[in-house]
Amino acid sequence: MTKPCIICVAITGSLPRKAHNPAVPVTVEEQIESTHAAFEAGASICHAHVRNEDETPSSDPETFARLKEGLEKHCPGMVIQFSTGGRSGAGKERGGMLPLRPDMASLSVGSNNFPSRVYENPPDLVDWLAAEMLVHDVKPEIEAFDLSHIHQAARMQADGRLKGPLYIQFVMGVKNAMPADRDVFDYYVKTVNRLLPGAEWCAAGIGQHQLTLNEWCVAEGGHART
Amino acid sequence: MTKPCIICVAITGSLPRKAHNPAVPVTVEEQIESTHAAFEAGASICHAHVRNEDETPSSDPETFARLKEGLEKHCPGMVIQFSTGGRSGAGKERGGMLPLRPDMASLSVGSNNFPSRVYENPPDLVDWLAAEMLVHDVKPEIEAFDLSHIHQAARMQADGRLKGPLYIQFVMGVKNAMPADRDVFDYYVKTVNRLLPGAEWCAAGIGQHQLTLNEWCVAEGGHART
Ligand SMILES: [Zn+2]
Ligand SMILES: [Zn+2]
Ligand SMILES: [Zn+2]
Ligand SMILES: [Zn+2]
Repeated sequence: MTKPCIICVAITGSLPRKAHNPAVPVTVEEQIESTHAAFEAGASICHAHVRNEDETPSSDPETFARLKEGLEKHCPGMVIQFSTGGRSGAGKERGGMLPLRPDMASLSVGSNNFPSRVYENPPDLVDWLAAEMLVHDVKPEIEAFDLSHIHQAARMQADGRLKGPLYIQFVMGVKNAMPADRDVFDYYVKTVNRLLPGAEWCAAGIGQHQLTLNEWCVAEGGHART
Repeated sequence: MTKPCIICVAITGSLPRKAHNPAVPVTVEEQIESTHAAFEAGASICHAHVRNEDETPSSDPETFARLKEGLEKHCPGMVIQFSTGGRSGAGKERGGMLPLRPDMASLSVGSNNFPSRVYENPPDLVDWLAAEMLVHDVKPEIEAFDLSHIHQAARMQADGRLKGPLYIQFVMGVKNAMPADRDVFDYYVKTVNRLLPGAEWCAAGIGQHQLTLNEWCVAEGGHART
């Protein structure tokens, strides 16, 4: 395990608002400032969502463009990853910022339940987002909310819909989806090594599971998200 | 592996029509006749969908009632399992036949992709279907299209939303969801034994995967669906 550990900082997310936690960076300026602090502290990937002025999740390409410009200036060399997650837009809106050519973008390749709804990633939208990432040379971070998502990513790499080597993120501790279970975590790592040799992986734990997942990740040679 | 092997016959399904295969039983009378033949041949569970007159999938309680009456007459002692799958109705319609108190009904506890769409099982609908099954004393067959669905079933049994011991069906070979992968199959069995000791399990392979899955099932002590 001598490879350098990549630390990924997820600023903002799509849900928390100022009313819940006044420290959450919401405006682009606040996001740049807080990412800069994480960058100085050693984070090398910035996973970013953006917001509308009323703090609701957005996928507005202009807001993403302002964020990218600021990050490039304040955090030179940091890997910028935009979220194409389903909270911030419906259908192709979710990929409207990909022509900005961020270094990376998140990509869900399957559907699953969230705490109170279905996280919908229909096959044709997944294929369209993957194609946009190929065209604009954006490296996907595969968000694996369940085991079949790793298998689907492997099929998409095999048939050229995704360009390897892939970067997979296991997302655990999501209510009504996959819990933070160590046996599953180990099987995920085994599955990535079997189906996608050469892929890198990391893991994200939701809420109180974040630290647990970071520990497992570092122990098994994955990357960590904070 | 001395326990008796349950053979489950899935008549009709929700998709194939006469135009694709004239042998598919579509009317209730045809369904009863073909189930009777399977019953004589040793099948002990009948998993049933029903159709409208134009052969489109239905969840009409009256059609289910006619089917149940005929099966009870022609196949005495056979376990009758109704489908609450998502092709035949939206929302609570999917469980409209549960007051008929079939022996069993299928229950999906998570969402996943199907070949060309999202198979949507939102958490509140899952909970409602499970509650209906408790009220009407219907034993669920948990349709596990992905690994987290086994974990979700275990949580639902632990907190009383489902009554154990559970009966789990692994569904494999679904395009854009879980492939028919032997390593995953073995891990599914291991997971059921770990989280749900005492549960029974079977497996369904879609299309050309059916025979493969039956072989794995019989080899590992599960039940078979034909
Ligand atoms: Zn990451
Ligand atoms: Zn995100
Ligand atoms: Zn079965
Ligand atoms: Zn069915």
